[in-house]
Amino acid sequence: MKLSITGGGSFETNANATIYETLKANGVFLVSPCGGKGTCGKCQVKVTSGGATVKSYGKLTQQERKDGIALACQTSATSDLYIEIPEHSKLVLGGKIAVSIFKDTAAYLQSYGVGIDPLAKRVSLTLPPPSIQDNIGDLQRLTRSLEDVGITNMRFAHKFVSTLMETLREGDFSVVVSYSKQSDTAFDAISVYPHEQCNGRYGLAIDIGTTTVVVYMVDIANGAVIDIGSTYNSQTKYGDDVITRIVHATEGGGLADLRNTVVGDINTIIDLLCGKHNIESRHVEAAVISGNTTMSHIFWGLNPASIREDPYIPTVNYYPLWHGSQARLNINQQAAVYTAPSVASYVGGDIVTGILASKMHRSPGISLFMDIGTNAEVAIGNDEWIMTAACSAGPCFEGGGIKFGMRATQGAIESIKIDPNTLTPSVSVIGGGVPTGICGSGMIDAIVELYKHGIINQKGVFNPAKTPLVREGEDGLEFLIYKSDNSQRDIVLTRDIVLTTVDMENLIRAKAAIFAGVSLLLREAGLTLDVLEKVYVAGGFGNSLNVEKAVMLGMIPDLPPDKYIFLGNTSIIGAYLTLMSDTLRKDLESIASKMTYIELSVVGGYMDEYMSAMFIPHTDISKFPSVAAALGL
Amino acid sequence: MKLSITGGGSFETNANATIYETLKANGVFLVSPCGGKGTCGKCQVKVTSGGATVKSYGKLTQQERKDGIALACQTSATSDLYIEIPEHSKLVLGGKIAVSIFKDTAAYLQSYGVGIDPLAKRVSLTLPPPSIQDNIGDLQRLTRSLEDVGITNMRFAHKFVSTLMETLREGDFSVVVSYSKQSDTAFDAISVYPHEQCNGRYGLAIDIGTTTVVVYMVDIANGAVIDIGSTYNSQTKYGDDVITRIVHATEGGGLADLRNTVVGDINTIIDLLCGKHNIESRHVEAAVISGNTTMSHIFWGLNPASIREDPYIPTVNYYPLWHGSQARLNINQQAAVYTAPSVASYVGGDIVTGILASKMHRSPGISLFMDIGTNAEVAIGNDEWIMTAACSAGPCFEGGGIKFGMRATQGAIESIKIDPNTLTPSVSVIGGGVPTGICGSGMIDAIVELYKHGIINQKGVFNPAKTPLVREGEDGLEFLIYKSDNSQRDIVLTRDIVLTTVDMENLIRAKAAIFAGVSLLLREAGLTLDVLEKVYVAGGFGNSLNVEKAVMLGMIPDLPPDKYIFLGNTSIIGAYLTLMSDTLRKDLESIASKMTYIELSVVGGYMDEYMSAMFIPHTDISKFPSVAAALGL
Repeated sequence: MKLSITGGGSFETNANATIYETLKANGVFLVSPCGGKGTCGKCQVKVTSGGATVKSYGKLTQQERKDGIALACQTSATSDLYIEIPEHSKLVLGGKIAVSIFKDTAAYLQSYGVGIDPLAKRVSLTLPPPSIQDNIGDLQRLTRSLEDVGITNMRFAHKFVSTLMETLREGDFSVVVSYSKQSDTAFDAISVYPHEQCNGRYGLAIDIGTTTVVVYMVDIANGAVIDIGSTYNSQTKYGDDVITRIVHATEGGGLADLRNTVVGDINTIIDLLCGKHNIESRHVEAAVISGNTTMSHIFWGLNPASIREDPYIPTVNYYPLWHGSQARLNINQQAAVYTAPSVASYVGGDIVTGILASKMHRSPGISLFMDIGTNAEVAIGNDEWIMTAACSAGPCFEGGGIKFGMRATQGAIESIKIDPNTLTPSVSVIGGGVPTGICGSGMIDAIVELYKHGIINQKGVFNPAKTPLVREGEDGLEFLIYKSDNSQRDIVLTRDIVLTTVDMENLIRAKAAIFAGVSLLLREAGLTLDVLEKVYVAGGFGNSLNVEKAVMLGMIPDLPPDKYIFLGNTSIIGAYLTLMSDTLRKDLESIASKMTYIELSVVGGYMDEYMSAMFIPHTDISKFPSVAAALGL
Repeated sequence: MKLSITGGGSFETNANATIYETLKANGVFLVSPCGGKGTCGKCQVKVTSGGATVKSYGKLTQQERKDGIALACQTSATSDLYIEIPEHSKLVLGGKIAVSIFKDTAAYLQSYGVGIDPLAKRVSLTLPPPSIQDNIGDLQRLTRSLEDVGITNMRFAHKFVSTLMETLREGDFSVVVSYSKQSDTAFDAISVYPHEQCNGRYGLAIDIGTTTVVVYMVDIANGAVIDIGSTYNSQTKYGDDVITRIVHATEGGGLADLRNTVVGDINTIIDLLCGKHNIESRHVEAAVISGNTTMSHIFWGLNPASIREDPYIPTVNYYPLWHGSQARLNINQQAAVYTAPSVASYVGGDIVTGILASKMHRSPGISLFMDIGTNAEVAIGNDEWIMTAACSAGPCFEGGGIKFGMRATQGAIESIKIDPNTLTPSVSVIGGGVPTGICGSGMIDAIVELYKHGIINQKGVFNPAKTPLVREGEDGLEFLIYKSDNSQRDIVLTRDIVLTTVDMENLIRAKAAIFAGVSLLLREAGLTLDVLEKVYVAGGFGNSLNVEKAVMLGMIPDLPPDKYIFLGNTSIIGAYLTLMSDTLRKDLESIASKMTYIELSVVGGYMDEYMSAMFIPHTDISKFPSVAAALGL
């Protein structure tokens, strides 16, 4: 039987396959953080006609069910079936999810004043062909020619050698050898190609976030980013934050599952990118992994148990340079896979790459670096020292734990304005058109607007007397940001978008954790706000963070807006820089080694700071003079 | 249904399992060079009662069939079945097959004046446990303690790190790390154990012959050989010599089969030895592979095609130090697996280890080294230089191509005396009792005796007029060495043992190839016989080679018997020495690098030398003065 999609696409399906599986097999990917288990409620489709069995409706509301909405992963066709896929269900690959704001990455690389010297290097060699007189073995012949060009002490993996005989002869002893540098004096051979067959050479920058995974496919010969792929980290089906993942990995015995899940996510992207650009996977010879400590451990299948046990020790901070096969990536099996070093259990490689991307380690002036992702990490320092700490902020600003939360992608509400007279909101949507959710910057806008107009109080509690847009929802009071309009059914399927009481509580807890972390780190460094020359903000808020609004919310310090620089996803750009330059790879390691980790739970005073920050903007308004002035307090 | 064996043993079997398979599954191994394909005719059993289906009788004679003999690999039970297993069908594991003559290997190692410094080393470490103040990662903590004891620049494989977290804590941060030396300044970690769980440490010396495989299980802490396992190389099912194996690997696409076959043979032995001695496979941390160039290539799955193509170039002479996982051995997956370097396509690592075992590289006097295995390789030299060559002798002296040929194991006729008056032979059998075949030394004895008494002429042709023991056999004339006596059926099943015309031709071709090789190598070195101080003879002839007889045959030069030293299997003892001492490993590499290979087919004159040596002892009797004197010529 057939599964047909409004707007295009018709695929063979059967009663044993879910709609989700049939779509995936045909290259149509739906948002599904739970990986098709029916628990996240994200892979919604609308059945317009035909027969289907529905195993479970999961989190869908009565209204949604009435409207014909079903979860693709719980639904199978029993006859030819016609469905619509709402925009908010479509997984955007290669879209704007957690992408760096640097569009011309090669130019940014150049701005560091370093040459192109990627993780995987190549050298062309013409070996003298063997004869009865010169009858040394193939490997020795290759080694001799490498030594002639100054490359000594190279290691040859078994797999490399296993194709050497044929390759040397196919290339008539004229070959290209790719290799990586283990150290300044030790090299690892990656691959050998007949000279004329050796065209592309590629590398991957991979950001493994707790919530999302981003992959840059890079032409490492020139640093051009050929394409970008991104997806949700399917590990979220085992929990939203790193702690529940660690618990699942250890107490639940699910380390292998977690590893397979995220490696599967990455490989799906790699396969898509290779297929789209006709790249042979064996030509992908290098990868840089940037993730927090737990994500990096799980990626490598390393038991993360000790990360959450006092004294919070990871197995590895500085990772050996391992290979594609051990990483289980669908790339060259001897590819060099470098993992960004981490500083501590809760300040990982993603922060070290982030600091590399910010350049704060090159400036004598003191800067603050904040990465607001699934958690928030902060660092203060300059070209001589860096102090860092982690705040348990949770994934709100990436969409996690927020009913209509989503990443800053197509369809996300990224800013909101509430009319002072009518108290009705008007929204701005990424990519225009009908909104499908709300991203971090939209949430910040919304709270601040709601607060400014008295629709919520300082603690984020709704005042239903103020406007009928505050209504009773399924989880208590909620504010209607966008009213769905399904009158024009042939265009797109939409839904009401609200912010709930629970959303409000989560957002205020998150902003309080961030502000408390910054305050405490400043105190530990013995500094006050006024010494900060720059504040770099990283994270997936959209194209930009509205600094004034974030200050008004009390999430970030009250500093002049021109000191703030929004950098987007610094983990991926730092991974890219590391992939492209051995000099920057050394810089990365030097950043990691000079970062001093402050354990906020140990130094004392964190809980006080946190509780004080649970107001909008803060219990101590004197910390926010510009807000006080603006609100006339 | 049951399969019961006279003398003990009764196993469940079924109609789909061959007797061979049922026996193997129950730990009873039969001789089967063809690996159970019905072609070698060696896995003979006698069916005494019960029902069976026989797929093929293969090479069995009419008489054997009449006597109830069947091939175990071609026979399945149809009801309860009773069989006898003749001695000659029983595979001797851990027996005398190709074992070194050095019984006290540890003492022999000591005679080199080197300390015990095995391929896999161990170091005990007590790490300071982590704290909030000293919170570096586990791997960094380990590295720091290693550096404290002077071990810097150690590489950690992914698999090593993947158990580090648990092991450190299990051992309360008191651990033992095993490692190997990649070079004087670079180390590879193998395993980490909690201190108190770290008992045995083992290594393997492995001799991969074209015909046999020998494994020494060694306690590398003290050099004691714990046990020995040996078996036929099951690759013989694909051909008896290296050339047919190469053809099968390349033109036949059978490289993977060949590799799996020999690795399977080795793993069978390893499993048996580990089981017998309660050794955990992960505690086997090192192995040294010694084999000819083709065997070593196939062991590692390297395409041997170029070995047999002008200009005869192997892929590898000097092998990287790879690991247990890549070797696919049932040992520690990070175990250091060292492969003895080869000199050329037809002078392999087994000869280099052989020279190490002979000590000829330590003596200023000039020696000749001969290894007579499936082929024969020769070397001349001293502590400054060594020249070497390969002779295409074939596998006769190991039993190959000889109708009743066998290795020098239990039941083999190792010497023969023919009564000058009655012309009847009397035989001496290894282990005593009824003979089951004839080994190399027995063959040499036989030819010489037959020749001395005029039963064969100078060309090895039988004279049937001389004695009725020369009789018409299935393949022409043959000489009856031992007449079977099955009157006492309850004791053992026996058979006639003969030497055939074809056997004679093969033996004379083999001895001619060896002598021609020695002659030509001496000529190329510009030396005459009288400069030789010692002649080391290696090979599986049994406990000793009868030098006078071998000289009389014209196989080896006519030198005083006291210059000859028979060493047995030098490949395995050389592998053992290499396993136990890094100093000797360096010696081995220095031997390989100073060996000059002479390609006999290129230097000219080989065919003449060979044709002249196709007589007993030689067409030019002046080369054999002692033989001329003894025979009164």
